[in-house]
Amino acid sequence: MFSALACATGTRARRGTLTTAHNVIATPVFMPVGTRGTVRTQTLPQLEALGAPMLLANTYHLMGRPGIELFERLGGLHRWMGWGGSILTDSGGFQVFSLATSRTIDDDGAVFQDVADGPRLVLTPERSIAMQRAIGSDVMMVFDHCVDATSSHDDTRLAMERTHRWARRSLAARGDSPGKLFAIVQGGRFAELRRASAVELVGIDGFDGYAIGGLAVGEERAEREDITELVTELLPVDRPRYLMGVGTPLDILEAVHRGVDLFDCILPTALAQHGRAFTQAGKLDLRKGLHRFVDTPLDPTCPCEACTRHSRSYLHHLVKTREPLGWQLLAHHNLRFYVRMMSDIRDAIANDTFVAYRAALREILATEE
Amino acid sequence: MFSALACATGTRARRGTLTTAHNVIATPVFMPVGTRGTVRTQTLPQLEALGAPMLLANTYHLMGRPGIELFERLGGLHRWMGWGGSILTDSGGFQVFSLATSRTIDDDGAVFQDVADGPRLVLTPERSIAMQRAIGSDVMMVFDHCVDATSSHDDTRLAMERTHRWARRSLAARGDSPGKLFAIVQGGRFAELRRASAVELVGIDGFDGYAIGGLAVGEERAEREDITELVTELLPVDRPRYLMGVGTPLDILEAVHRGVDLFDCILPTALAQHGRAFTQAGKLDLRKGLHRFVDTPLDPTCPCEACTRHSRSYLHHLVKTREPLGWQLLAHHNLRFYVRMMSDIRDAIANDTFVAYRAALREILATEE
Repeated sequence: MFSALACATGTRARRGTLTTAHNVIATPVFMPVGTRGTVRTQTLPQLEALGAPMLLANTYHLMGRPGIELFERLGGLHRWMGWGGSILTDSGGFQVFSLATSRTIDDDGAVFQDVADGPRLVLTPERSIAMQRAIGSDVMMVFDHCVDATSSHDDTRLAMERTHRWARRSLAARGDSPGKLFAIVQGGRFAELRRASAVELVGIDGFDGYAIGGLAVGEERAEREDITELVTELLPVDRPRYLMGVGTPLDILEAVHRGVDLFDCILPTALAQHGRAFTQAGKLDLRKGLHRFVDTPLDPTCPCEACTRHSRSYLHHLVKTREPLGWQLLAHHNLRFYVRMMSDIRDAIANDTFVAYRAALREILATEE
Repeated sequence: MFSALACATGTRARRGTLTTAHNVIATPVFMPVGTRGTVRTQTLPQLEALGAPMLLANTYHLMGRPGIELFERLGGLHRWMGWGGSILTDSGGFQVFSLATSRTIDDDGAVFQDVADGPRLVLTPERSIAMQRAIGSDVMMVFDHCVDATSSHDDTRLAMERTHRWARRSLAARGDSPGKLFAIVQGGRFAELRRASAVELVGIDGFDGYAIGGLAVGEERAEREDITELVTELLPVDRPRYLMGVGTPLDILEAVHRGVDLFDCILPTALAQHGRAFTQAGKLDLRKGLHRFVDTPLDPTCPCEACTRHSRSYLHHLVKTREPLGWQLLAHHNLRFYVRMMSDIRDAIANDTFVAYRAALREILATEE
């Protein structure tokens, strides 16, 4: 179900394919984030125009609304949202970290208070997998205990050990599901915990891939890159590797260089809401008055709707007047930038020009008006 | 430039065509509202899919941002927003009413304080027409003094007389502009003032059409319908009539019956923001839980993106989670409902079945879940 097709010289970057029940996905790949069953602001035609083969959806949020019953009755998320590509689901483990102030946790699972539209929400490995099965997820994640980057060695170790126990329970709960299941390597910023986590999980038979969790939660870039590297070195070459929630184009480029295959991040849509756009000439801030009379596209090399039909001047106006269309068009453009970058990265690996590509892209990404 | 092509039996409804520099517009027609150079939430492909031949834009708002200089430098609103159809512009006269607490007014014009992105904004007949010319408006409005429905007879009369003086100044300011210019009948809720206003303005040579202003500002429906009727009876049959800012589907149906040709209203997009949708089976409130598991389209007879690609269940979810896509899809659907209703109205007039059509549509419009 995963094949590493090509490796490039002077890098651990690899070109592969991941096959799901819905499609064959060329890796490295970026997944737009569709937390609640919609990629924020994007219509289905826009989503389809992106050329992204797989979206990410979120077990925790979809459990709160619309709830598991809906998927059991109406037949899964793909059909409900009208998406023909693949869907990878996070397990809710990230909310154990991000909603830490409103949940309690023990070895059984986590209980979230103050949930939208409900009194509380209980997540255990078994309940998380049941929800991911109801969603009809192509790639499920084990339920994990994610901690923040400032956690002590002891707290990080305990959460990691719990993550390993929950990984085994998630595997047992998977049953006959056609969805793939990825384990999640934890261990925070401690190299020897990360090594222990990778070795332990690789030793368990049955996982279809491995995620690296607990990064992009407050640590330094160098730390993140070092940990990514030491973990990927311990993971089997014939399984896909997914760096959860990461990140900027530079983060992704550097993680590909270190052997990662799958990515997701809310940045393309979140930055768009604040008028920021990625281009082949660097990052632009459309809120700035300098765009007011600029009658040229955001990025003349980009084939997206924002670039082929609108000028910087008009986009600047939409951003300044807080029109929803401004957010939508910039989100579409930024997602397209990410999807195109991944396509360029795959080509560079296949042509064994990744080292030169990386150097050139690093220069573009350092440019900000 | 305007021809009344057909009239139906038992009604003053008429089918006509209005020809602008951009297209030939079949009337009666509904204009989506693009106040700031964008119909809120709608992309250009969505706008084009509606089949609406003309949009409304607003002089006051566009004068504040992006400002007249932009249109002078970049060549008008059509090109700037990418719209190939016609554009009708309101003169700013409505803001004399709606922003009454932050403006002063005298015979020269109005001065608005607390304007977004600027210290103040001055509108006179000459400045309003200059802005509408810079926009490249296909149909310009004279600058008028609109008052609310509770104004006294004296205040209403004074504002009406000022509106007539400003109509003459607007006409003089029009110069060699290729844009058409409509006069605006005022006179509030007073029948004899409305008659005086219509007679006075029809007596001035040079207007291409007539708008009825100062309605949908707090008066009763019966009052609005009576005034519409008495004004249209006094207007020449060979000029288009535009009922400004009106209204619900029922308002429009009743005004067509009384001989009105052009309409605009923010309701289709504004109601969408609150989860309300017009359908051929009545009005729906998508916020209600009864739609949660409904796996059928909003309106199975509607060819729009919301109806052909999504279920009520999914739209309910988008509305409940306040996803921008929910607003956008319902806005698109509601606009399509209006555009389609106008097309049905035109067919009914042409086929001389308007009286029966009106009775049937009134029944549908009275249905609300």
